[in-house]
Amino acid sequence: MKHLISTFDLTKGQVDYLFRLYTEFKGGRQEKLKGDVALLFLESSTRTRFSFEMACRNLSLRTYWAGPRESSIEKGETFYDTVKTLSSLGFRALIFRVPFVLFPYDSYLKESISLINAGDGSHQHPTQGLVDLFTAIEVYGSLEGLKVLYVGDIAHSRVFRSGSHLFSMYSAKVGVVGPRTLLPKDLTPFGVEVVFDDITTALEWADLVIYLRLQEERFKENYIPSKESYFLQFGLTKERYKKLKGFFMHPGPVNINVDIEAELVYTEKSLILKQVENGVYVRTAVLYEVLKDA
Amino acid sequence: MKHLISTFDLTKGQVDYLFRLYTEFKGGRQEKLKGDVALLFLESSTRTRFSFEMACRNLSLRTYWAGPRESSIEKGETFYDTVKTLSSLGFRALIFRVPFVLFPYDSYLKESISLINAGDGSHQHPTQGLVDLFTAIEVYGSLEGLKVLYVGDIAHSRVFRSGSHLFSMYSAKVGVVGPRTLLPKDLTPFGVEVVFDDITTALEWADLVIYLRLQEERFKENYIPSKESYFLQFGLTKERYKKLKGFFMHPGPVNINVDIEAELVYTEKSLILKQVENGVYVRTAVLYEVLKDA
Amino acid sequence: MKHLISTFDLTKGQVDYLFRLYTEFKGGRQEKLKGDVALLFLESSTRTRFSFEMACRNLSLRTYWAGPRESSIEKGETFYDTVKTLSSLGFRALIFRVPFVLFPYDSYLKESISLINAGDGSHQHPTQGLVDLFTAIEVYGSLEGLKVLYVGDIAHSRVFRSGSHLFSMYSAKVGVVGPRTLLPKDLTPFGVEVVFDDITTALEWADLVIYLRLQEERFKENYIPSKESYFLQFGLTKERYKKLKGFFMHPGPVNINVDIEAELVYTEKSLILKQVENGVYVRTAVLYEVLKDA
Repeated sequence: MKHLISTFDLTKGQVDYLFRLYTEFKGGRQEKLKGDVALLFLESSTRTRFSFEMACRNLSLRTYWAGPRESSIEKGETFYDTVKTLSSLGFRALIFRVPFVLFPYDSYLKESISLINAGDGSHQHPTQGLVDLFTAIEVYGSLEGLKVLYVGDIAHSRVFRSGSHLFSMYSAKVGVVGPRTLLPKDLTPFGVEVVFDDITTALEWADLVIYLRLQEERFKENYIPSKESYFLQFGLTKERYKKLKGFFMHPGPVNINVDIEAELVYTEKSLILKQVENGVYVRTAVLYEVLKDA
Repeated sequence: MKHLISTFDLTKGQVDYLFRLYTEFKGGRQEKLKGDVALLFLESSTRTRFSFEMACRNLSLRTYWAGPRESSIEKGETFYDTVKTLSSLGFRALIFRVPFVLFPYDSYLKESISLINAGDGSHQHPTQGLVDLFTAIEVYGSLEGLKVLYVGDIAHSRVFRSGSHLFSMYSAKVGVVGPRTLLPKDLTPFGVEVVFDDITTALEWADLVIYLRLQEERFKENYIPSKESYFLQFGLTKERYKKLKGFFMHPGPVNINVDIEAELVYTEKSLILKQVENGVYVRTAVLYEVLKDA
Repeated sequence: MKHLISTFDLTKGQVDYLFRLYTEFKGGRQEKLKGDVALLFLESSTRTRFSFEMACRNLSLRTYWAGPRESSIEKGETFYDTVKTLSSLGFRALIFRVPFVLFPYDSYLKESISLINAGDGSHQHPTQGLVDLFTAIEVYGSLEGLKVLYVGDIAHSRVFRSGSHLFSMYSAKVGVVGPRTLLPKDLTPFGVEVVFDDITTALEWADLVIYLRLQEERFKENYIPSKESYFLQFGLTKERYKKLKGFFMHPGPVNINVDIEAELVYTEKSLILKQVENGVYVRTAVLYEVLKDA
């Protein structure tokens, strides 16, 4: 495994192996790698960047990061040029978060540098998908037949696109519910089996609910949904919370009182802080697998 | 001492102890701690951030920082969620500079992460208060009865709020002078004994003068005072400089020719560079005290 | 050598020596220095900052950086105050990229901190000049009589100002071609021997062509040249590429299809990636030479 751009590039065997690595790192395994890793975060993010940076340092990799304002991409440099340049500078890996979709991406993969996707537009965020999968395995054991429901802005969600495929790979049943305008027409490529019309029915069905972030930053101006009506129709309210059969997740940061009611974020059915904690080990496992040779 | 949010939370005994630690680190004491420290600077700052970052590295702590554009707070995450998230990521301390007042702050203190305030709105900047106090002790010896004058924008100054309390704790006499519109009504909570009407009388009285920064960034638009008239009435001019009995301080960055005339900034009565130099050791002492156990 | 602000401050002997150091570091020499280095990049840049940061870390120097939004210069602090402050904080070197010309600069040189220019307005970018020189020496051997042509926005180019002087110091012949409005009146101070009216004649003459970046960020609004006509008249097209006798360089980032046609950037006559690769070693050599004592 030289790159991680999309969960669709992973075989079940590779995910199994990453899970074993993840478990070992979480259990205290220590490894030392050599080299320089660039973190290019053209969209703001604290938790994902810090999580990746910690993973790098746990492996003794040296980190360099650039934020939204500092990159040469601001000066019109293409992503391809950035990849070539960082490769020539001697970086072993580029962890990137970008506001555009990196697809197709074959042409970027031939360079010596490893590419690790930390979120590209509405396309993929593979380590978040792995975090959700591995956290679910820890909590539920086997995922065979587990009913996993994604709630919210399915259309703009790279978290959904990354995770649903992994859940269906592990024989979970994936359902979705959300505003009609925020549902892609064809959801079968992502392993979705059920599309619910109604949040109540959907929550009754689900063993695990994954709330998505209403991503205003991805909407065109005249398309921003009313937060109030979104919350009333789909958000996690106290009443809906009581009816949850199992746990809920959210990739963070939560839109308080839009995605989830303020007081419910850190309740006992919430796996949010577990997701955050596990993120460091997932990323350590991915980086180790990608960079362990050489 | 697990957190440092406000100098009002410190006992005289704790400050005495921090001064001893400070003196030892300045004298060359070396200590090695373990762990990760996040620096969240939502307001721009070089000197304070670099100073904290140096303090961390002197203690072998690993640093991670995010600036104004990079944080998830930009996406609407609450400060509380940031604290919970960083805590779950495994950070031992969060050093924060934020444009809002963090008060009341009890609810943030229960997490495992240590909170260190590097400036919150117009509220507190405790390490700067300690820098000013410790620098004064080094220069003047005992502060008993020392007349300390704060000049300028008292109302918006977290430096004043942090330091005046410490000076009065050490039995110095604190006076203030500044534009009437920039003086809070009740100054007794901060240990102020004298409010001067007139800059000349005030400077004649003072043994130590602490110039504050005219903080335009904290004014509402139609409230920005005229810099020219501020300088003429309160700024450090050559004429006023000659009359100073003792030294002067400024937390930096100086508004040149507004707070202080350009040529006077680094003159012999100036303690500005001493404050900067001492800042690293003060922050080393604070971080060591907060993180030494575990 | 305590500072590196301008290539005009370097003797031939110093450049020779830097080239030897550069060769040794490229060949694997390892050195360990102690201390803290500040990187103040008030203009966005990835490649130059990362390159400097790698050089620092290769020498075991600790790095601290601030970008466009984070510096106290944003709050009105002068460059002089920044230098004094960083010096008092204990930094051994300040690597700076700033949007203004740092000239004259004598008054900054007396502080204990070493100043290393990573680009100041349209003035100088000395390490890029050294990169171009050293890369040319590696490729062409002796530069005696080598015809070096700079193409493009000569007036705004700190890369030109830094490099042409070095090339003429090594007895190369320097020519320039570009839009008349982007040529300074007197080019003799920079060692220029020939000013071409016409790109075809210029390219026929040249052994090495250095394309410059059309730096929109340096133009006043009503002065922005038409990119299309710039490309048609001066850019590297396929037709012109065929006629090149030797190699071409570009300091990056390339304005694709303005400076150079997309498909030509990484062709066999291109030295662009070599320049990037060599940059780390040039900067390692400079930092080592500046900081090796003490």
